[in-house]
Amino acid sequence: MSLDKVIMDINKIEKKYSNLTRFNRDLINVNPLQTAGRLTPEAKRSMLEFGDGYSVCDYCKGTLEKIENPPIKSFVEEDFPNFIGSDYSRITHGAREGNARVMKAMTKLGDSIIVDGNAHYSTIVSAQAAGLKIIRVPAGDDPGRILNVEDYIPLIEKYNPSLILLTYPDGTVGNLPDAKRLGEIAKQKNVPYLINGAYAIGRMPINMTELGADFIVGSGHKSMASSGPVGILGFNEKYKDQITEASETYPNKELGCIGCSVRGAPLITMMASFPTIVKRVQNWDEEVAKARWFSEEMETLGMRQMGEKPHNHDLMQFITEPFYEISKIHPHKRGFLYKALKSEGIVGLKHGLTKSMKISTYGTSRNNLQKVLDTFSTLLDQYSN
Amino acid sequence: MSLDKVIMDINKIEKKYSNLTRFNRDLINVNPLQTAGRLTPEAKRSMLEFGDGYSVCDYCKGTLEKIENPPIKSFVEEDFPNFIGSDYSRITHGAREGNARVMKAMTKLGDSIIVDGNAHYSTIVSAQAAGLKIIRVPAGDDPGRILNVEDYIPLIEKYNPSLILLTYPDGTVGNLPDAKRLGEIAKQKNVPYLINGAYAIGRMPINMTELGADFIVGSGHKSMASSGPVGILGFNEKYKDQITEASETYPNKELGCIGCSVRGAPLITMMASFPTIVKRVQNWDEEVAKARWFSEEMETLGMRQMGEKPHNHDLMQFITEPFYEISKIHPHKRGFLYKALKSEGIVGLKHGLTKSMKISTYGTSRNNLQKVLDTFSTLLDQYSN
Repeated sequence: MSLDKVIMDINKIEKKYSNLTRFNRDLINVNPLQTAGRLTPEAKRSMLEFGDGYSVCDYCKGTLEKIENPPIKSFVEEDFPNFIGSDYSRITHGAREGNARVMKAMTKLGDSIIVDGNAHYSTIVSAQAAGLKIIRVPAGDDPGRILNVEDYIPLIEKYNPSLILLTYPDGTVGNLPDAKRLGEIAKQKNVPYLINGAYAIGRMPINMTELGADFIVGSGHKSMASSGPVGILGFNEKYKDQITEASETYPNKELGCIGCSVRGAPLITMMASFPTIVKRVQNWDEEVAKARWFSEEMETLGMRQMGEKPHNHDLMQFITEPFYEISKIHPHKRGFLYKALKSEGIVGLKHGLTKSMKISTYGTSRNNLQKVLDTFSTLLDQYSN
Repeated sequence: MSLDKVIMDINKIEKKYSNLTRFNRDLINVNPLQTAGRLTPEAKRSMLEFGDGYSVCDYCKGTLEKIENPPIKSFVEEDFPNFIGSDYSRITHGAREGNARVMKAMTKLGDSIIVDGNAHYSTIVSAQAAGLKIIRVPAGDDPGRILNVEDYIPLIEKYNPSLILLTYPDGTVGNLPDAKRLGEIAKQKNVPYLINGAYAIGRMPINMTELGADFIVGSGHKSMASSGPVGILGFNEKYKDQITEASETYPNKELGCIGCSVRGAPLITMMASFPTIVKRVQNWDEEVAKARWFSEEMETLGMRQMGEKPHNHDLMQFITEPFYEISKIHPHKRGFLYKALKSEGIVGLKHGLTKSMKISTYGTSRNNLQKVLDTFSTLLDQYSN
């Protein structure tokens, strides 16, 4: 590349990248991906401290999870396992990468894996990338999509899977299936059991051992007030050797993470937010009560909540037929809802969706949620018959 | 977990995690891992804007690399490929994850891969994790460790590898082998050719096409003034289908990244620092001149530089026999060097190492490097005969 070329482009490049800002920052946000990922003040401070590349590695002696300053070692070896009831933990780039690590460790090409019908797309993609046969346990019909974990039994007997996975809760309708009963089934059938807790760990109390799981994954950016990408994998003694298998050449480098995972600020934000996380899961009953209240209000407006009722999680999907009807006559067409909310400082709905919407009430005050409901109500008053 | 238990531990947990700080921040730093990963002011600002989990995803329609706000799409599709001379690019969690993605796409279990003898440990671990046979092209003897790329030829003929890899430069002695000649060899032998440019992209001018490579990986946190974990994979048209293979079930989700990679602030810091990166690689001649000056001064003090001489990169390893001699008689023993530097506000050397040291002069002023040399010199005056 010639110097001229670079000089020619640099003004355009500076204009494009030098001042990246986010409109949605600090607005009322109902996006289930984002409500529990907002940083704590502690995380914001720590992010600047450890923003520079590789700054968590000042005192690394070759293994991320053994670093004592910042206290990654005690986070990974003591505090986080205590929090989720696992024997061990490892830092990952996120829940999906944790799932992929478990799949890689516990299966070989062509093996079968059984997953719930409500599983996240990344579970399917991970299994496809690993060359696994995927058997799905169908969830029930709409609107409930209830999963009966007893349905794992005949499939386990038929396919002899190397691993079973349960999404708890799923990311579409927010159902919490009977993970504990599946733990009993897994134990009885002697099959390794992985819980995808991306929407659980950091929002609600959850204990891997109590649920009878062998592995659990969580997401920092999704549910632990962290910057992405970062997550955590909890696992028990029984499968420790498989998960922590090291390189023959480099005994302190584990194969499952190519020797190291999150060498940066996202890990620091997850640690800095940890005290808040430990405390906030104790407020889970209020979060559920708030979600149920919101759901009732939505149904009063003519919307229909999908999934379990009464609901047990802040992530909800609503069928919003009345909004679809408005979109047919509104001057902004399918974009009317998004625009109306945005003008009230409310974000997190997908642009152009009016037939259904996913909403999370997590960490948002009842006052602000009332504002969302009022905006909906006003639109209905204006455009419905 | 009972509420009592949580309340009992919370003070200890808050004390440990609520105020994470970094002693090394803003000091003179000579750690090759860190010198080119220090954030730009633009990156620091953008990191707070996009610190919250999943905040880059406000306008995502299902594929990270297609997001137009922030301008990830044009970064990935236009500006970064222009910068490194590739046809395409993808965001990765770092160089190693980019290498792993290429290995996964281009090989199958049991295939052979040829890598240089100076390759980073993560290259070996990636290949082991992928179940590949690893053939190493030996580098020359100490102190030069010069790699002759012609030595790839008989090994390619003997092992018929699915992929060859060159580390450019290596992270131990900072040599820059003849990557362009290896490109000719790769073309002649029709073997896919991957360059690990973790210490190149963002520090020095480099062009994948000019070097004749099919793939190149770079590291944001290592060499692009970014917070970790983030990196980039450049690749050419020829192998596009392999690298971008999508899930059969989810056509907009690529297998090589389980559907998505860096969903967070590190990607934003890499974009915000990009204008600076594009400009600073034009100063590479001065960086090399500075490294050579530093090396000469070190040799005057009785140290011996490993690798190519004159040196062509800021990453250098020195044999520091005079310091080893001092460590035998100094009251702080092997820790004396680390402590002496720290008291002068200089960090980045491994604690306890006195026989050899890795130093990067990148982005540090000659004045500050002189301070490092003066500290060394003073120690030698005080403790040598």
